[in-house]
Amino acid sequence: MRVLGIDPAAAGPAGYGVVETDGATCRMLRFGALRRSPRASFEERLRAIHALVEELVREFAPDAVAVESVFTALNMKTALKLAEVRGVVTLAAAQAGIPVHSYAPREVKASVAGYGNASKQQMQQMVRATLHLRETPQPADAADALAVALCHIYAVQAHERIARATSSADSHAAGSRIQPSR
Amino acid sequence: MRVLGIDPAAAGPAGYGVVETDGATCRMLRFGALRRSPRASFEERLRAIHALVEELVREFAPDAVAVESVFTALNMKTALKLAEVRGVVTLAAAQAGIPVHSYAPREVKASVAGYGNASKQQMQQMVRATLHLRETPQPADAADALAVALCHIYAVQAHERIARATSSADSHAAGSRIQPSR
Repeated sequence: MRVLGIDPAAAGPAGYGVVETDGATCRMLRFGALRRSPRASFEERLRAIHALVEELVREFAPDAVAVESVFTALNMKTALKLAEVRGVVTLAAAQAGIPVHSYAPREVKASVAGYGNASKQQMQQMVRATLHLRETPQPADAADALAVALCHIYAVQAHERIARATSSADSHAAGSRIQPSR
Repeated sequence: MRVLGIDPAAAGPAGYGVVETDGATCRMLRFGALRRSPRASFEERLRAIHALVEELVREFAPDAVAVESVFTALNMKTALKLAEVRGVVTLAAAQAGIPVHSYAPREVKASVAGYGNASKQQMQQMVRATLHLRETPQPADAADALAVALCHIYAVQAHERIARATSSADSHAAGSRIQPSR
C-alpha cells in the first residue's frame, strides 16, 4: 500500500510525503514542502497545490491520499482559506480516481506519536524513527504530511485486524452455534 | 463585460449564471443549477462543480468570475464544506486565467435589491426585472448566481465612476494649482 499524505496550508509551506508499506515496515519514498512565493495570489496558490498533487499522484500512483482535516479551533477566516486548499487537494485526488481520507491533527498525533498533544518536535522525531530516516524531515510541514500518511496506514491495518478478528470470532461463534444442533 | 456568477453549494443545487453588459443594460446569456445526485460522494461533487465552471468558462469566456463568499454564520462544518467547493470554483477560474471576485450574501442583496435583508423571492423578482426575463429564474440558486454576477458588474461600474470623478477632480485641482503660478 502506498499513501500520499498532504498537510495543506493556505499561507505557510504545504507539506507532502509519500509512504509505502509491505505490511511489516513503512518506508518513505518522497517528502517536501511547497512554499508560497511571497508575491503569489491565493488563486495562484490553489493552482500550485492542485498541480503538485496531480504530479505526485502521477509519479507515485498512491492507493490513497490522506489529508489533515481543517483544525476548527483556528479563526474562521484562516479555517475557510484552509478548507479551500483542502477542496483543491480532494479534487486532484478525485480526478485521478483515488480515495481521500481525512484525519484530525489530534488523531494523527495520537496515532503516530502515541498521544494527541505531541509537539511538532516529537512528531518529527517519531516520523524519523518510524521511517528509519537519518535526519528529522524538514520543514515540520513535511513531517506532518508523512505523519498523516502513516496515520492512514495504521488506520487501514487496524481495520484489517478488526475485520480478521471479527470474522474468526464469527466463524467460531457460527461453529459453536452449529455444534449443539448436531 | 461578461461575468460568470456562481452560487456554490455543498449539498443543494449550485447555481450559475452568465450576464453580459454593454455599459447601459445587462442581459442574461445562461443560467441554471447543478443538482447533486443523491448517491454522489462529496469528491464527485467537487469534480462536477470544477467541470461545470471549466465548461462555462470555455463556452462564454467571461472577463471575471463572481462567487458568493462563504456565509460565516453557518455552522462550522457546513461552512468548511462550502469553502472546499469555493476553492474548486476559484481553481477552475485561475486555471483559465480569469480573476475571481467574492461578494458576501448581504452585499449581493444590498447591491441588487437595494437592501441586505431582501428575501429569496425579492431577489428572484429583482433579477428577473433587471435582466428583462419573462419568468423568475428557477431554482432560487440560479437567481442567486445571476445576482452575484450583477453585483460584480455594479461594483466595476461604481469603481469606474469613482475613478472618473476622482481624475476629473484631480485635473481640475491640478489646473487650479497651476493657474495661480502662471
